[in-house]
Amino acid sequence: MILVNGQPEDKINVLDRGLQYGDGLFETIAFRDGNPEFLQDHLSRLLSGCERLKISSTQLKAQLDTEIKQVCDSLNHNTVIKITITRGQGGRGYKAQPDNIPTRIISTHDMPKYPKENLQGIKVRFCQQALSENIDLAGIKHLNRLDQVLARSEWNDDDIAEGLMFNNQQQLIEGTMSNLFLVKDGKLLTPELKLSGVAGIMRQQVINAAQQLGLEVIETVLMQQDLKNAEEVFITNSLIDIWPIIEVKAFSSYVYGNITKQLQNSIKNSTR
Amino acid sequence: MILVNGQPEDKINVLDRGLQYGDGLFETIAFRDGNPEFLQDHLSRLLSGCERLKISSTQLKAQLDTEIKQVCDSLNHNTVIKITITRGQGGRGYKAQPDNIPTRIISTHDMPKYPKENLQGIKVRFCQQALSENIDLAGIKHLNRLDQVLARSEWNDDDIAEGLMFNNQQQLIEGTMSNLFLVKDGKLLTPELKLSGVAGIMRQQVINAAQQLGLEVIETVLMQQDLKNAEEVFITNSLIDIWPIIEVKAFSSYVYGNITKQLQNSIKNSTR
Repeated sequence: MILVNGQPEDKINVLDRGLQYGDGLFETIAFRDGNPEFLQDHLSRLLSGCERLKISSTQLKAQLDTEIKQVCDSLNHNTVIKITITRGQGGRGYKAQPDNIPTRIISTHDMPKYPKENLQGIKVRFCQQALSENIDLAGIKHLNRLDQVLARSEWNDDDIAEGLMFNNQQQLIEGTMSNLFLVKDGKLLTPELKLSGVAGIMRQQVINAAQQLGLEVIETVLMQQDLKNAEEVFITNSLIDIWPIIEVKAFSSYVYGNITKQLQNSIKNSTR
Repeated sequence: MILVNGQPEDKINVLDRGLQYGDGLFETIAFRDGNPEFLQDHLSRLLSGCERLKISSTQLKAQLDTEIKQVCDSLNHNTVIKITITRGQGGRGYKAQPDNIPTRIISTHDMPKYPKENLQGIKVRFCQQALSENIDLAGIKHLNRLDQVLARSEWNDDDIAEGLMFNNQQQLIEGTMSNLFLVKDGKLLTPELKLSGVAGIMRQQVINAAQQLGLEVIETVLMQQDLKNAEEVFITNSLIDIWPIIEVKAFSSYVYGNITKQLQNSIKNSTR
């Protein structure tokens, strides 16, 4: 099912700034057991992204509430709901107009069929492709995703579940589709996202869960060497929850450890 | 007029990777006096961009040749022709498939009504918004244009014709929609585009014209201070040719000098 501006439709105008410039944002939401998981968190991030990009969001929340409910009511199996918001059509060249009317797209997609064993451990690799650095775009889930597309094109081996990405300053930031966590000295470390990266909804859930477990959580600059020295390592996103990393190809290996297991349990049992 | 994959159509599928990820490229061509200017240069850059992004371009050149001819034959006034190529639909998440079939969009747009006086001198300003740095994307005209959108949103004053952009390393790179040239000690300097920026078609035409005039042309790292010390400064793109900068707001001013005039004449009289 696809709704464009509330209407069943699978196309948008080629003049839409979402296509022309990647001028927009998106959210990927797991719909499981009749529930769009962490929906309010996704909507908050989306609206805060609109604010960052100065996309008018006056009516957006109410419209999305109605349309997401309509889509959810039509679903009878687990699926992925993707929400895309663009600045809409118009403006002269790159210049937007204050009266641009945002385009809303809500689409449903098959849930990816990841191996169940990934929950006990995955192999990953490093990507050559660097993440762009941009303080004004860091954190938000915008539509300029060529970095990730190029990084994901670096391997075809099904055995490798994810690629880890650095920025141009050799800071370790995230996976192509996930956020990264390290356990070290019993503390939970995750890259700060001031220059690059997406502040994932599951990332925040894991930070919250860790704090409830009494773990210290530190968002900081992390380099390759920090990864080498970690005791446990895992990645997160809204569709996979938490996958422990047991091997970084040609670099390091880890156990599927107790802190990762505790966090998986916390997330599994959280209100979502 | 808009052709999508050769058919009159003004919409594309919302699942197109051009919208989903900005996974594509574009060209903006001036059609004047019955002629799509510098067409072969634009097509070369487009195809080289496809190669950089690993977008399959086997049939693309022949298809575009036919479709551009069809569009040009339908035109009876000066206009802008925009060509957009995306990787098409499909793939799992960011991962592209080797058999993705590119989407071709050819659209026509009114020629922007710039003041004629711009050819004798414009005022510009600095943008706060930095250009992303990415060695793999630098130079090509891809669809990830949020940097430019945000930069262009920084001013509404019609008196300011362009904004100049730096990257995060305070290197001066280009305008939001143009390339930048400085004249210093009789030499022509322009920012190298190894980390950021678009290698404009008009930029290359100006470099060629300068060399034919016997000017030394240097592509190099340029900082704000280099701009301060320049004798003449101008910007270029395919729709404006060359606009001399006579003032950088709150920073510096320049004459509309002889080298700029000579280059304007060379470009005006070139085969285009």
